[in-house]
Amino acid sequence: MTIRVGIVGYGNVGRGAEKAVLADPGMELRAVFTRRDPRILELADSSVPALPVDAAESMTGEIDVMLLCGGSATDLWVQGPHFASMFSTVDSFDTHARIPEYMAVMGEAAKTTTAIISSAWDPGLFSMMRALFGSVLPDGASYTFWGRGVSQGHSDALRQIEGVKSAVQYTIPIEGAIEAVRSGALPQFTAREKHLRECFVVAEHGADSAAIEATIKSMPNYFSDYDTTVHFIEEQEFGANHSKMPHGGMVLHSGKTGGSGHVTEFSLKLDSNPEFTGSVMAAYARAAFRMSREGAYGVKTVFDVPLAYISEKSREYLIKELL
Amino acid sequence: MTIRVGIVGYGNVGRGAEKAVLADPGMELRAVFTRRDPRILELADSSVPALPVDAAESMTGEIDVMLLCGGSATDLWVQGPHFASMFSTVDSFDTHARIPEYMAVMGEAAKTTTAIISSAWDPGLFSMMRALFGSVLPDGASYTFWGRGVSQGHSDALRQIEGVKSAVQYTIPIEGAIEAVRSGALPQFTAREKHLRECFVVAEHGADSAAIEATIKSMPNYFSDYDTTVHFIEEQEFGANHSKMPHGGMVLHSGKTGGSGHVTEFSLKLDSNPEFTGSVMAAYARAAFRMSREGAYGVKTVFDVPLAYISEKSREYLIKELL
Repeated sequence: MTIRVGIVGYGNVGRGAEKAVLADPGMELRAVFTRRDPRILELADSSVPALPVDAAESMTGEIDVMLLCGGSATDLWVQGPHFASMFSTVDSFDTHARIPEYMAVMGEAAKTTTAIISSAWDPGLFSMMRALFGSVLPDGASYTFWGRGVSQGHSDALRQIEGVKSAVQYTIPIEGAIEAVRSGALPQFTAREKHLRECFVVAEHGADSAAIEATIKSMPNYFSDYDTTVHFIEEQEFGANHSKMPHGGMVLHSGKTGGSGHVTEFSLKLDSNPEFTGSVMAAYARAAFRMSREGAYGVKTVFDVPLAYISEKSREYLIKELL
Repeated sequence: MTIRVGIVGYGNVGRGAEKAVLADPGMELRAVFTRRDPRILELADSSVPALPVDAAESMTGEIDVMLLCGGSATDLWVQGPHFASMFSTVDSFDTHARIPEYMAVMGEAAKTTTAIISSAWDPGLFSMMRALFGSVLPDGASYTFWGRGVSQGHSDALRQIEGVKSAVQYTIPIEGAIEAVRSGALPQFTAREKHLRECFVVAEHGADSAAIEATIKSMPNYFSDYDTTVHFIEEQEFGANHSKMPHGGMVLHSGKTGGSGHVTEFSLKLDSNPEFTGSVMAAYARAAFRMSREGAYGVKTVFDVPLAYISEKSREYLIKELL
């Protein structure tokens, strides 16, 4: 049975989700909803309607799952409960510290729908690995490293600085820290010991690059606790080499059983963070669809969804071919 | 609530499971069952009774989950349905080709119990990764590599050869093959291109080592399709360096979304294969306990069990701390 999908929000993640849905023969993209003027959206499939967000209310019988691709800071707090009251939903809410609060809001809304929250890669797949590793090796510790990849938050922080025209920040895991975990030593790290921060900045004409660099390196929360390098480059080089959004990272766990040590690792190397995020959301749309048909309503996380529910394959296929 | 656990079979995996259960404050090891004379078992905790297998029938009210640690070739075909008719069970049935058949047998038996089959690392965690990776990156391919580690089946095959006193076989993944997958090229491999086989053999006094080596290298199914090296060593070196059971391996997946390529990896490096296997089984005992209490009876696999069910932590903890 074809899953009828809607996408809310057409930024980078929305476009990634669009690609994943269009590539899945088991899904049909019914509409993309936007708060902007729908006429300005250039969808990948011109037969899919772009509609104002308000149009969704009259389409409850036409769409099975809404992929909520707005941002976590403000969009999802409004759109999440609004849509979850009418449709099963999947989102990638990623403000880790506020997940319980967001979950409560979504739980209130999802009375006759299934709302799967925080289903991306961190939170999402990385969360699953932290839980899995801790479950099979309770006497141990998990470590998460991010990168090498573009941090949107840190890049945004750079762009707020006076004299900065364009900027991007790469988070880089420190290889020696990863090796220390692999050794089974259960090391404790400061922020500075786990990650480097590398910035590529295009300065405005006439800007004081020394002042910009000093501002970056002393910026609390974002850069002052890290070894940060700043490269000033020309606009042309920026466009040629720094316009993509690669990311990735790893979850490592080291633990003991009896007298034996074990190391488990999970890693992602992503050419496009938003496309992969959209693809994970599409996989969890299968789960939202199946769980809602079974009456498993309410707010769910990646910890609550059996893997058989996210596959485009049948349970029988998984058991015969992949178990 | 404490989970009351029994262990059936006291070989390497049984001893691994025993360590995991004893280490978990949420579990109580109620008994170890054996087909041998129970008096010869030397359990890690002398307060735990060792009992004959038949004694279990009168203990249905005293044990919540039985960890079935017998072998897949013959033991589990008998013990699996026998115990699943009385207790919730977890096993590590690992004859991949016969899993659907075993599953049907267990499904018949587990009418008022929860029987989780094939819950180790392959099948088990590796199966989960193949399903997860294929779900989030359907346009791609998964590759499983094993090792470096001891293959019991191949070691047993060596020990059948005339003139062989002791022997162990290590399966070794070929680094170049792993790198080819990481490149995103979706390579196709022969068996020889993925793994090497390295044998350490103690020959009987006066045995013809050249003949033994020729027999090994030409053995169909086990060695003839691989680049196999054979080292003849002394008994003392064998005991000193080859008596442990390390293992591990990795599942890699390379896939595309739109125009972007992604590589996902999962790897295990295990000092003790049976201890880790026992620890995974103990984690799934939590799930068998919880699912049976909810009335989710029948035969289950790792694809059917939400991660929240295998953790010793509460769902609330997982969401707050790990999501």
